[in-house]
Amino acid sequence: MLIVMHHHATDDQIRTVQEAVAAMGLQALPIPGSERTAIGVLGNQGYVDDAGIRELPGVREVIHVSKPYKLVSRDFHPEPTVVDAGGVLVGDGQPPVIIAGPCSIETEAQMLASAHLVKAAGAQILRGGAFKPRTGPHSFQGLGVEGLKLLRLAGDAAGMPVITEVMRIEQLEAVCRYADILQIGARNMQNFDLLKEVGKLDRPVLLKRGMSATLEEFLAAAEYIVAEGNGRVILCERGIRTFERATRNTLDLSIIPLVREMSHLPIIVDPSHATGKRPLVPVMAKASLVAGAHGVMIEVHPDPDRALCDGAQSLNGPGFESLMGEIRKLVAFIGY
Amino acid sequence: MLIVMHHHATDDQIRTVQEAVAAMGLQALPIPGSERTAIGVLGNQGYVDDAGIRELPGVREVIHVSKPYKLVSRDFHPEPTVVDAGGVLVGDGQPPVIIAGPCSIETEAQMLASAHLVKAAGAQILRGGAFKPRTGPHSFQGLGVEGLKLLRLAGDAAGMPVITEVMRIEQLEAVCRYADILQIGARNMQNFDLLKEVGKLDRPVLLKRGMSATLEEFLAAAEYIVAEGNGRVILCERGIRTFERATRNTLDLSIIPLVREMSHLPIIVDPSHATGKRPLVPVMAKASLVAGAHGVMIEVHPDPDRALCDGAQSLNGPGFESLMGEIRKLVAFIGY
Amino acid sequence: MLIVMHHHATDDQIRTVQEAVAAMGLQALPIPGSERTAIGVLGNQGYVDDAGIRELPGVREVIHVSKPYKLVSRDFHPEPTVVDAGGVLVGDGQPPVIIAGPCSIETEAQMLASAHLVKAAGAQILRGGAFKPRTGPHSFQGLGVEGLKLLRLAGDAAGMPVITEVMRIEQLEAVCRYADILQIGARNMQNFDLLKEVGKLDRPVLLKRGMSATLEEFLAAAEYIVAEGNGRVILCERGIRTFERATRNTLDLSIIPLVREMSHLPIIVDPSHATGKRPLVPVMAKASLVAGAHGVMIEVHPDPDRALCDGAQSLNGPGFESLMGEIRKLVAFIGY
Amino acid sequence: MLIVMHHHATDDQIRTVQEAVAAMGLQALPIPGSERTAIGVLGNQGYVDDAGIRELPGVREVIHVSKPYKLVSRDFHPEPTVVDAGGVLVGDGQPPVIIAGPCSIETEAQMLASAHLVKAAGAQILRGGAFKPRTGPHSFQGLGVEGLKLLRLAGDAAGMPVITEVMRIEQLEAVCRYADILQIGARNMQNFDLLKEVGKLDRPVLLKRGMSATLEEFLAAAEYIVAEGNGRVILCERGIRTFERATRNTLDLSIIPLVREMSHLPIIVDPSHATGKRPLVPVMAKASLVAGAHGVMIEVHPDPDRALCDGAQSLNGPGFESLMGEIRKLVAFIGY
Repeated sequence: MLIVMHHHATDDQIRTVQEAVAAMGLQALPIPGSERTAIGVLGNQGYVDDAGIRELPGVREVIHVSKPYKLVSRDFHPEPTVVDAGGVLVGDGQPPVIIAGPCSIETEAQMLASAHLVKAAGAQILRGGAFKPRTGPHSFQGLGVEGLKLLRLAGDAAGMPVITEVMRIEQLEAVCRYADILQIGARNMQNFDLLKEVGKLDRPVLLKRGMSATLEEFLAAAEYIVAEGNGRVILCERGIRTFERATRNTLDLSIIPLVREMSHLPIIVDPSHATGKRPLVPVMAKASLVAGAHGVMIEVHPDPDRALCDGAQSLNGPGFESLMGEIRKLVAFIGY
Repeated sequence: MLIVMHHHATDDQIRTVQEAVAAMGLQALPIPGSERTAIGVLGNQGYVDDAGIRELPGVREVIHVSKPYKLVSRDFHPEPTVVDAGGVLVGDGQPPVIIAGPCSIETEAQMLASAHLVKAAGAQILRGGAFKPRTGPHSFQGLGVEGLKLLRLAGDAAGMPVITEVMRIEQLEAVCRYADILQIGARNMQNFDLLKEVGKLDRPVLLKRGMSATLEEFLAAAEYIVAEGNGRVILCERGIRTFERATRNTLDLSIIPLVREMSHLPIIVDPSHATGKRPLVPVMAKASLVAGAHGVMIEVHPDPDRALCDGAQSLNGPGFESLMGEIRKLVAFIGY
Repeated sequence: MLIVMHHHATDDQIRTVQEAVAAMGLQALPIPGSERTAIGVLGNQGYVDDAGIRELPGVREVIHVSKPYKLVSRDFHPEPTVVDAGGVLVGDGQPPVIIAGPCSIETEAQMLASAHLVKAAGAQILRGGAFKPRTGPHSFQGLGVEGLKLLRLAGDAAGMPVITEVMRIEQLEAVCRYADILQIGARNMQNFDLLKEVGKLDRPVLLKRGMSATLEEFLAAAEYIVAEGNGRVILCERGIRTFERATRNTLDLSIIPLVREMSHLPIIVDPSHATGKRPLVPVMAKASLVAGAHGVMIEVHPDPDRALCDGAQSLNGPGFESLMGEIRKLVAFIGY
Repeated sequence: MLIVMHHHATDDQIRTVQEAVAAMGLQALPIPGSERTAIGVLGNQGYVDDAGIRELPGVREVIHVSKPYKLVSRDFHPEPTVVDAGGVLVGDGQPPVIIAGPCSIETEAQMLASAHLVKAAGAQILRGGAFKPRTGPHSFQGLGVEGLKLLRLAGDAAGMPVITEVMRIEQLEAVCRYADILQIGARNMQNFDLLKEVGKLDRPVLLKRGMSATLEEFLAAAEYIVAEGNGRVILCERGIRTFERATRNTLDLSIIPLVREMSHLPIIVDPSHATGKRPLVPVMAKASLVAGAHGVMIEVHPDPDRALCDGAQSLNGPGFESLMGEIRKLVAFIGY
């Protein structure tokens, strides 16, 4: 931690800050400068709460050097983590994982068709939403537990592990009964109670980045899960909210290499939610893999024009098969 | 709903769209233009899901005229709503409500001191957090139910209704036992299950705007609560996330008059969380009231420099008393 | 400057950084921590370019303590600056300045009507645009020098100093011939050549904040002007670009008290461009003054529905008179 | 254009709007709905100014179907444009162009070394900045005309066309004397006078996206150049400003396929400025090409640690050679 004093800070004010630091059991090291004095703080084990310092007279700014996460960082865990997601390995040294399926679970026929379609095309994990977060209360909200059963049925029929979103703690038991992998959605990335609960489970978790979450907050959210004992976390970039509305969100691909440098956790990309536009999905899926993503999650619907949710960003069968053909070539080229 | 076709859309494509609209039980009215054709959709009752339309060949854009909320809008409920919040009336024609207290509940002494302090200065409602959402898992997370008891105790001692944040459905019973008003925090604004549950209660709710929520999403979140039967919703602007980091968030005061025009619900402002800087709180509190806010929520701590949470944005006793003196004069000037 | 090393940085890497700092003629002070070492840099006069440091092996981050501005800061110039703007004093201790007039200069009749209207209502400075920045090339671009003459004519007729935007260096001579105050628009806030040229003039300058400019960049832009010798700079907050599109821009009122703390320059607010909506302008003008703005700039048009530019945010005559009545009361209340 | 009326709009108000539309020489077509009436406007040639409509009583919203650009859109020019940039063809069906060189021109030795280095590695166009926009006035501002001469010298020595940024109209003559391609920087994307002037020249232009420019504004800025007669415009995505500060800007790769769909102009990517971090540049350059970019612009410096500007994002010689090797393989794979 570095405490930057105001230009006009008095010697007394500087001394008071040093004493406050000492009272926290830490060491204070003044760094006099030509314009102002800064005070380095030594001896802390991790992130220090600056509440007792920031408002002392003469203090202009407190700069944190430590981060609000540690377990998920490469600094303290240099080896990459490979997550076993229902039998599929996700992470460094593995071919990229392809998760595919419809946004919403609608009917048995739709789920079976989706599962066979994506399996035949080469996807390894089946996705489908039973609990749907929707902006307004008057939109379709998902089938609930009935949907979970259809997802399991379809996954078993096609021989694929399945992933679905869990929105609240009470759903955890049901979701764990039917799903192999838990998904935490963007709107729940800072639902800290939910994070802690899934942290207590022995189940892989896909954590989506919040719509306005910084990379630091994203990693700190993963830290909540890992700190409870569950280290099987897969991160997922799905676009952030910016002023640009030509796409649904702004896909922030540059964080892929950055996360790979800063964290040992695997990270995948969801180009469907990020762009919100079907024609952009295949090209952004490929760009994601070249950027270093450990996989992609793609919305696929056997009949997107009749989908109850997000049809506009879903690929149909032939579209997904064609993308998978291109991905196979790309993966061979990259050389996994 | 208006469907805008591509410049090069064929007559066949236009016809197909018209048929798809008809199949939804709605009327399609083509509007030929010099550059392109648009198709007006008539006969819908509220928001229409455009999934079956948006991806038809030749469609460039679908523009929604209806909004994802209705119950909270002035269009359908022109009379302003005045919410009874633990005996304090909040809304049009009422003097602005002042909610004050510490960010976190820490000790009995701290809560009693806070309650007497803010009561004496003129606040009507006592705030205090028992469950604290924190970015990283290694920070203080709140006292939980013990905190709720201290909050109640302090409120009773000072003769004030109390408000506290509820973060998950399982906490609702406990929170309702001890608190008069429920607060939904910014991170939970789109925790739709939580919104629905508080919508079923007979208890006033303070709903904070999400960090990256548009005004439309904010009102749609309130709609979730009202749609379940609980019309006692108070909105709260607390700053949005932007590129500017000189303040903790960017306080979006312009939405105050806009919400007052679009919705019948009352809206207050939290300048403490918005700015994150103690010296800015009083001036922005006053600007909020002039902008038309129905009240403000202010963080006050008897000893901010030792607060376990957000001390840097809390006023101390004399600071709050001084602000209340200024607010009283301002309110007299505005002339409630 | 503080150089933060990686957790795993070697002693050799730390030594190399120390040597690089020494080679820049500065002192390096290592601050060993439990997680990593930081290196304080001493002896710099102002902002240091970190290009030679940031990419040395083992360096994780370089944190600047000095700012890219100095002349405009209170640290080095504690006394507030009062700018003489065509005879009207703007700054601390002065009643707030009211600048009013149409977005675009259209006709002699329109300008004369506007000038007499705003003068009668109590405005001190007349505004009007002769050179208009427009998103697309097919919109009205302003009358140019003819417009400048009409502005001067109207100002003289009503006995008011006039302000107008200058968009390029070649316009400076003409604009200086006709206008008392130069306005630099948001799109030109980082047109550094233009800033330098107006910095060489003996003419007050109104500098608008760029649409995506941080407060630091805003002050650094003002520094360009002041560094050339022209200290008569008035800052103007006019809203920033965020994800929220319910208003044209997001008016960032919280920076008003912050600028007053950090800089000695006066700052005013343009609620017309910020909100883009006529009904919001009066209320946000008043909130701006309560937030501490040294004035406001208001778009007024005798017949807004026929304005060639931005009519939707312009007040008409009665609207402006009514606002001025309220401002007068507010100013009396605040007690200038 | 579609005019949406308020829920409570009266028949009289609707009639008044219809008359106002008629007075503009256009046709008004009312579309009654269950919640509100909308009025379609027919007969316009391109974008219509809505100033006379938006503020009529009863009008809630005006929705534009036409865009503020036309010449740059595929709607009116379906064939892709291939730009001859100093003898190098940029656009569909061409191998991606590689533009490389230092951020700032510093010395003859540095420029000659850079030119030979990037040429040998396979770059086709040499870049270098003679006029540098810098946030604060106390940073290195570029060599000016001396720099242009060094750029030309180095380009000739290596047999490469050269590109450099022009910041103001007065520089155009000098820049045109020495450079083959003009660059308009992000800060000048809406410097409309500059756009018009380069629009009158017979010289290819690289137009960078503004830091907070929407895609619509970006294309409208290109329209300014094309409307003056210069159709040789290459667009350049270089990252937008968002709340995320882990990278210098947020590289918005999803607009690449979108621009290719909406416009016939070629578009390239600058991963150096977008990310601001050397280790991210190669991977994002490759992702850009896979996303469909017609080329990339890369900062290369023979000795980045001693660069006067942006050294932290510059590749050194071996780094650039290695990237070029990977790009060659990728290009062969993609199959140009």
